[in-house]
Amino acid sequence: MTVSLRVPTFEDVKVAASRIAGEAHRTPVLTSRTANAKAGGALFFKAENLQRAGAFKFRGAYNAVSALSPESRRRGVVAYSSGNHAQALAYAATLLGAPSVIVMPKDAPEIKIAATRSYGAEVVFFDRHSDDRDAIARRISEERGMALVPPFDHPDIIAGQGTAAVELFEEVGELDILITPLGGGGLLAGCALSAKALAPNCRVIGVEPEAGNDGQQSLQKGEVVRIAPPRSIADGALTTFIGDHNFPILQAKVDEIVTVSDAQLVSTMRFFAERMKIIVEPTGCLGAAAALNGVIDCTGKRVGIVLSGGNVDLKALSGFFAGA
Amino acid sequence: MTVSLRVPTFEDVKVAASRIAGEAHRTPVLTSRTANAKAGGALFFKAENLQRAGAFKFRGAYNAVSALSPESRRRGVVAYSSGNHAQALAYAATLLGAPSVIVMPKDAPEIKIAATRSYGAEVVFFDRHSDDRDAIARRISEERGMALVPPFDHPDIIAGQGTAAVELFEEVGELDILITPLGGGGLLAGCALSAKALAPNCRVIGVEPEAGNDGQQSLQKGEVVRIAPPRSIADGALTTFIGDHNFPILQAKVDEIVTVSDAQLVSTMRFFAERMKIIVEPTGCLGAAAALNGVIDCTGKRVGIVLSGGNVDLKALSGFFAGA
Repeated sequence: MTVSLRVPTFEDVKVAASRIAGEAHRTPVLTSRTANAKAGGALFFKAENLQRAGAFKFRGAYNAVSALSPESRRRGVVAYSSGNHAQALAYAATLLGAPSVIVMPKDAPEIKIAATRSYGAEVVFFDRHSDDRDAIARRISEERGMALVPPFDHPDIIAGQGTAAVELFEEVGELDILITPLGGGGLLAGCALSAKALAPNCRVIGVEPEAGNDGQQSLQKGEVVRIAPPRSIADGALTTFIGDHNFPILQAKVDEIVTVSDAQLVSTMRFFAERMKIIVEPTGCLGAAAALNGVIDCTGKRVGIVLSGGNVDLKALSGFFAGA
Repeated sequence: MTVSLRVPTFEDVKVAASRIAGEAHRTPVLTSRTANAKAGGALFFKAENLQRAGAFKFRGAYNAVSALSPESRRRGVVAYSSGNHAQALAYAATLLGAPSVIVMPKDAPEIKIAATRSYGAEVVFFDRHSDDRDAIARRISEERGMALVPPFDHPDIIAGQGTAAVELFEEVGELDILITPLGGGGLLAGCALSAKALAPNCRVIGVEPEAGNDGQQSLQKGEVVRIAPPRSIADGALTTFIGDHNFPILQAKVDEIVTVSDAQLVSTMRFFAERMKIIVEPTGCLGAAAALNGVIDCTGKRVGIVLSGGNVDLKALSGFFAGA
């Protein structure tokens, strides 16, 4: 299938930044002497777990809904997602006066269903085993004239996510390395656009769960590699392929992709809770886990790390902390 | 007993602010639409749980050690505390090149003992049932020439804690109400000094655990009322009396003292974890619990709330979250 791609540039990130200003939280950048001692460098954590709706996804979602024509916005937006994108899109749509439909698996965590509804969305369920969620979402999109907003493979989504890195550079200045989690590639692609525009010598590194290193394989092979659904606690990075819009940016602007284990994610979650008093979901710990466990050598470097989200329910959290 | 008191003023808070600049974290002010909806006003949470050593106590401790003469600093500091003051003082002393001894109960939580040591302190244990911790600390102070730094009843401690409110006003501007937890009165007194200097019309309210309302009783009676050790999960506010330096400030500058229940503290901790992705210890939730449960009427008001700390071990945290 050949589709004409509109690959975003840093100019699009700047437009996104102006659209989300005053709407997305300008999240704090946190530091920890203990973290620095572990990594041997100066780590700057961009706390997107403190973003509205609990994850960086609000940036892209708000940008994407803002970019719609008034008429299109009136008809609304639809997405299929059991995760942070759904909540972010619902929230952004509500703030911008647009209706939203989120297609979620019947067995999605209750907290996510409740949160998505509380942000103003209509939730339509599908059965993971028998239904085709894409088909359901496309049907709703066609029947109601709603814009289908994908979670990562879209230029407005990528541009929106890139604003996280813009704010990080504005706040801390020069960085030797920028690290972000990698699922479908929205956050990494957007942040890579910003980093290479603002600090061309900054290395940009994506981090995947060990079990699902399709991004690493894709960069090595020079084409998008699709994998079977991986098993990892990093439930926001269980994507099986990098997006078509995202891949060329990763090829051009990302220096390296590394992986971490679930055990490293758990110990990193505990570190954030015990020492930094913040809740970071497993996916959100990918970048930090790589830095704190020596997977990425941070010795003597200034390193920016995006903590992508904090949406983990308290039962699951207690499970991760058990044995503490 | 008559002691000559040096009651601090806002001038002392300003001196403290210059001493701690660049040393204490300038903690972020967090907001939540959900919290605002619950309270009916605009709430601004000063996240001192993200302060160095996990609590506002670092402010007062650093200010107090900074205020020592070079000779006195060389001899070091001593404190008796099982809580946040101990860790903060140890950390501040180490940063300022001063040795520190912390006198802690033998049965203090392991995480607090380990953290206190990791911040560079020598830990001396006492038995809650048979030893007099004051006497032990005084003996160490005399034998080693170390300055005894009390947790709240000291002008430099009060002045240091007041810097939290200064930063809050600098960041958010006018406030109708400022709410802080109340234990021995260091935080509340310091913040009241700042609030009444910077925004004379701002109401200042302290919040105690229901089980230990000695502050409320003291203001009503016009003298420091001592109570039996209270039982509450707010382990940082189990003080049995307001400090001598703190009380006159509370009398002059605090408008009201209210109380909240342990159940309200637990639901507030869960709110912060689930919706705002931060870990706030029970004591740190006192102010927010009063605002989110209608104990303080925030309708249509701009309300600053100090979240005083985040030091709760993961086992205890899981316990508070159980049944979530």
